[in-house]
Amino acid sequence: MDVSELENLRSPDDLRTLSPRRVRALAEDIREFLVDSVSRTGGHLGPNLGVVELTLAIHRVFSSPRDSIVFDTGHQAYVHKLLTGRQDFSTLRQRGGLSGYPSRAESDHDVVENSHASTALSWADGISRARLLAGDTDRYVVAVIGDGALTGGMAWEALNNLADSPDQRLVIVVNDNGWSYSPTVGGLARYLDAVRTDRNYERVLGWGKRTLQGAGAPGRLTYDALHGMKKGLKDVLRPQQGLFEELGLKSIGPVDGHDLDALDAALRSARGYAGPVIVHAVTQKGRGYVPAESDAVDRFHTVGKIHPETGLPVVPSRFGWTAVFGDEILTIARSRSDIVGITAAMPEPVGLAPMAREMPDRVIDVGIAEEHALTSAAGMAFAGMHPVVSLYATFLNRAFDQLLMDVALHRAGVTITLDRAGLTGTDGASHNGMWDVALLRLVPGLRLAAPRDEETLRTALREAVAVSDAPTVVRYPKGDLPEPLPAQGRMAGMDVLARAAGDGDARVLVVGIGPFATTAVDVVARLKDQGIGATAVDPRWVIPVPAGLVEAAADVDLVVTIEDGLVTSGFGAAVREALAEQGLTVPVRAHGIPHRFLAHASRGQLEEELGLRPQDIARDTAAAVARDQQGIDITSAPRPSTQP
Amino acid sequence: MDVSELENLRSPDDLRTLSPRRVRALAEDIREFLVDSVSRTGGHLGPNLGVVELTLAIHRVFSSPRDSIVFDTGHQAYVHKLLTGRQDFSTLRQRGGLSGYPSRAESDHDVVENSHASTALSWADGISRARLLAGDTDRYVVAVIGDGALTGGMAWEALNNLADSPDQRLVIVVNDNGWSYSPTVGGLARYLDAVRTDRNYERVLGWGKRTLQGAGAPGRLTYDALHGMKKGLKDVLRPQQGLFEELGLKSIGPVDGHDLDALDAALRSARGYAGPVIVHAVTQKGRGYVPAESDAVDRFHTVGKIHPETGLPVVPSRFGWTAVFGDEILTIARSRSDIVGITAAMPEPVGLAPMAREMPDRVIDVGIAEEHALTSAAGMAFAGMHPVVSLYATFLNRAFDQLLMDVALHRAGVTITLDRAGLTGTDGASHNGMWDVALLRLVPGLRLAAPRDEETLRTALREAVAVSDAPTVVRYPKGDLPEPLPAQGRMAGMDVLARAAGDGDARVLVVGIGPFATTAVDVVARLKDQGIGATAVDPRWVIPVPAGLVEAAADVDLVVTIEDGLVTSGFGAAVREALAEQGLTVPVRAHGIPHRFLAHASRGQLEEELGLRPQDIARDTAAAVARDQQGIDITSAPRPSTQP
Repeated sequence: MDVSELENLRSPDDLRTLSPRRVRALAEDIREFLVDSVSRTGGHLGPNLGVVELTLAIHRVFSSPRDSIVFDTGHQAYVHKLLTGRQDFSTLRQRGGLSGYPSRAESDHDVVENSHASTALSWADGISRARLLAGDTDRYVVAVIGDGALTGGMAWEALNNLADSPDQRLVIVVNDNGWSYSPTVGGLARYLDAVRTDRNYERVLGWGKRTLQGAGAPGRLTYDALHGMKKGLKDVLRPQQGLFEELGLKSIGPVDGHDLDALDAALRSARGYAGPVIVHAVTQKGRGYVPAESDAVDRFHTVGKIHPETGLPVVPSRFGWTAVFGDEILTIARSRSDIVGITAAMPEPVGLAPMAREMPDRVIDVGIAEEHALTSAAGMAFAGMHPVVSLYATFLNRAFDQLLMDVALHRAGVTITLDRAGLTGTDGASHNGMWDVALLRLVPGLRLAAPRDEETLRTALREAVAVSDAPTVVRYPKGDLPEPLPAQGRMAGMDVLARAAGDGDARVLVVGIGPFATTAVDVVARLKDQGIGATAVDPRWVIPVPAGLVEAAADVDLVVTIEDGLVTSGFGAAVREALAEQGLTVPVRAHGIPHRFLAHASRGQLEEELGLRPQDIARDTAAAVARDQQGIDITSAPRPSTQP
Repeated sequence: MDVSELENLRSPDDLRTLSPRRVRALAEDIREFLVDSVSRTGGHLGPNLGVVELTLAIHRVFSSPRDSIVFDTGHQAYVHKLLTGRQDFSTLRQRGGLSGYPSRAESDHDVVENSHASTALSWADGISRARLLAGDTDRYVVAVIGDGALTGGMAWEALNNLADSPDQRLVIVVNDNGWSYSPTVGGLARYLDAVRTDRNYERVLGWGKRTLQGAGAPGRLTYDALHGMKKGLKDVLRPQQGLFEELGLKSIGPVDGHDLDALDAALRSARGYAGPVIVHAVTQKGRGYVPAESDAVDRFHTVGKIHPETGLPVVPSRFGWTAVFGDEILTIARSRSDIVGITAAMPEPVGLAPMAREMPDRVIDVGIAEEHALTSAAGMAFAGMHPVVSLYATFLNRAFDQLLMDVALHRAGVTITLDRAGLTGTDGASHNGMWDVALLRLVPGLRLAAPRDEETLRTALREAVAVSDAPTVVRYPKGDLPEPLPAQGRMAGMDVLARAAGDGDARVLVVGIGPFATTAVDVVARLKDQGIGATAVDPRWVIPVPAGLVEAAADVDLVVTIEDGLVTSGFGAAVREALAEQGLTVPVRAHGIPHRFLAHASRGQLEEELGLRPQDIARDTAAAVARDQQGIDITSAPRPSTQP
């Protein structure tokens, strides 16, 4: 066995002719490839090391793309990519390289690109239901979903619904590794735990192995024999008692998710059932990679470039936004006993872990359950607490209704912190936090802050938790903090960050929100070089558009806004509406993200592509000023509409 | 017993001194009051008739407002209102009268005003968790949630989460009547059904009755005895097997939800448990009112004014938007086998029922599960079907993430029809469909139609289902259709509905979306009377803003938009952005709903309050034209900002 076994694999069909011994060797080969490759590019390591055997077994029993394989939160699809002809991982998650998630543009074997959790059962239900309606009962759908994702409400909705549809050719593989981004919580986790430790586990495992061994030498014969075998089903299906069984669903397992024989037997049984059936596979996140296996806080879920032997980062992380939030919220919580942290299964990634360690009762991990998080927070506020719900910005989209109808309508003093707001880049279309400003603008009474550096983040958080009768939101980007950007003065309630007098009469007001305040300062310097007078201001609280900004805008010839949110409906659009409301005609040139989904690339590449670099904005502004001085209208946006 | 028993009730405390016999009499009295009163005002009848005894029992065992009672989808709170000092139902759901839902402004006994389903467990979890954190273990939270609402994902998220919190003083009353807005579907419904028909039901019922009878004459003594009694608990708690038990939650029941003694015993037991516990109460929707009890399609869930004896409507319903949709989608489905209807528990209210009756396999009722509905639709589209998901506009807010990330990102050919879009009025803040246009503008690739009458609804639906590579949405309001409004001609791809030459040079383009096209025609007539030339056009497809509208706007002096969506982010704002993108400076006066929640009132009252009547808009337009002719800027919006 050498690397060429993997390299020679052209399609998953090739897999089905391999002997079990060669499949096991291939599994080790894949694991080695993953550690070696992901340590060079960064990416999702732990989840993929956990599903090597599972993915192999699925591709041996089912026939993709004829059968559809749906991965929940597609970061567990690297092995699937390797097995379906995509073995060049050298530019993983880089522009033009492989996506970190399934991608229909890459392969016919990929179905779902959305990497938000808990959707796979609904996708699978839709696909298999449609095929059933069309009379096609030959093709199967396999949904692979983690135990963590099962805590999301959508998964429940799907399970409830598909219990009504007993003929769907649908196999749900529960990839039970006991983890979300942190250990899975709640009643479901304890239920799975109880099932795992039940002797049933041993019994089914034993059944799979005995059956295979009894059939003689392992090989195609065994699999074919098992495939046609119906009588084993009643032995392998779980008894009637159990969570899924109470809903009327059949389930098999638990099986050892690293035992290829047991997996093979379980999946073939599930295939033979010809109705929705759950296969409960127990796996180990980070399997086979010592630094990951022995890590208690799941640092290997996603990694940057690491040393493959030690797992230590090549470039040590600087002190980032998340860490500052984590430090400040803990400090606040020490002096205010009404502060409660809420996380949707991500205490480490959102920075609530330090608070959870010091005051475990006061950080609630609700599971991957953003909807419940927001409404439960409204309840806590009703009872006198001030909850701080910390989410990735993109996941707030899950809880819009609850934010609007439970938090805002009830004027609940709830603070939301949005990490990874704006461009995140390498995770692709569904991870950019580019919808939040536009979405939050729709919520009556809500106030949104976009701090520009460490100090303003700390201040914004303190100001946010001081509001007791309305929702407050603080958004900040992924990654490292920029250099501190102290105010040079104040103007109409806003921080003045840079001011330059020009040679002529033109005066420009440049407003970059959040970390784009730094861009604004740079733009002012570049305009100065061209003799154009400009001022960079930061209102810090950006929604609703502050009266001071409207006031300041009344005194200038041009307003330039910079954001990494939806330009057609975000901060720039809000400024335009606010000026129109006051009858002001000063033109606004809004820079931001156009109305489309962004392919994965680095943030720098995306900023260049979208014209969000200082030089782009300075050039556009100077041109607008020049046109204005020639009497040409400069109202229009910097680029043509990207609405289809 | 006469009506004065109810009239004399000042607070729920009075209830606790009543003998069981008088409570039973009071129940009958309340039922009579409900039928009599709601038949005169309209409102939610069936749900409230079903919870008369349940609400009485809860208020006798718990002490509101010290204990908090949380009603899921608060339309089942009429009895609660009657028992907490609100007995004037004469102006129910009218401006200034009682809300049709709990309202904090009305009473300290009310907690949750949001009438979207499945939120009660999260609210209750938040409240009781906060009290526990504050060390308060004396106060209870009672959440009343229907079996239908338990199909919503949020309820699952909450159950999973509170299983981790064993000390919460939380009683979950499952009001199991077998109905959502239609019979409850899915695995959960079958589970509850199985429990109901189990002999356990009899056993627990018997236990409640025996215990009470054994304690001698019914009265305070009995209740006090039961209240302190712990030993009965092990008899009344369900055995370990069962859906809720597998999650680690305790449950009691099922109990007969119309048997006051059994309810009393069960609720006192639950109270004594001092941890989260579920009380499964079986009730009958419409109980005690023959027309409702015997109705198979739940026409008495919400009623207009009816004759109390027969249940027949006082004003027969005209042929409405919903019926036209239902007729047209059935016609389309007859000729296209790929059309599938999806409803979130509301086949009758959204108009899919006729299609479901003719082709039952092709209308999927997913339960109260908008998230799953959208993602499952994306799956069906992947497999070659064209799903039509029919929702109330306000409930689309529940599925924004799924629409964005599953449907739009994957360019799925899914059609969504939004009934009850715009102002609905009497149902109050959480039922107005006023967010949809602003929200849908954020979704790349999506196209939105707002038909103005029957004919354009049929056409829009046909056009929508012809799009196979992007989401399409058709929105229309609640209620009766307006008179047909045929096009007088075409201009830049839009229907011209009215055109009037003026005395002067001013030319106004008036665009009313959907049924506001009629308003636009009226505005043009009024402007003509004042010598102002104007044209009313209807683009029918309103998002993205059609190029023809931008083209037509370039030729006029003023654009007026009329919509019943959020004016700061909706259609008018979209027109402003589209004009700015093309460098056009023609002013836009946008009329719509300001950035705040609306209290319940009739639609006519709300339109007057918001200045959306033809006379309001004509007056504002004429004033703007006059100012424009004096050289005054008219860019500004009709009214001051309502952003806080």
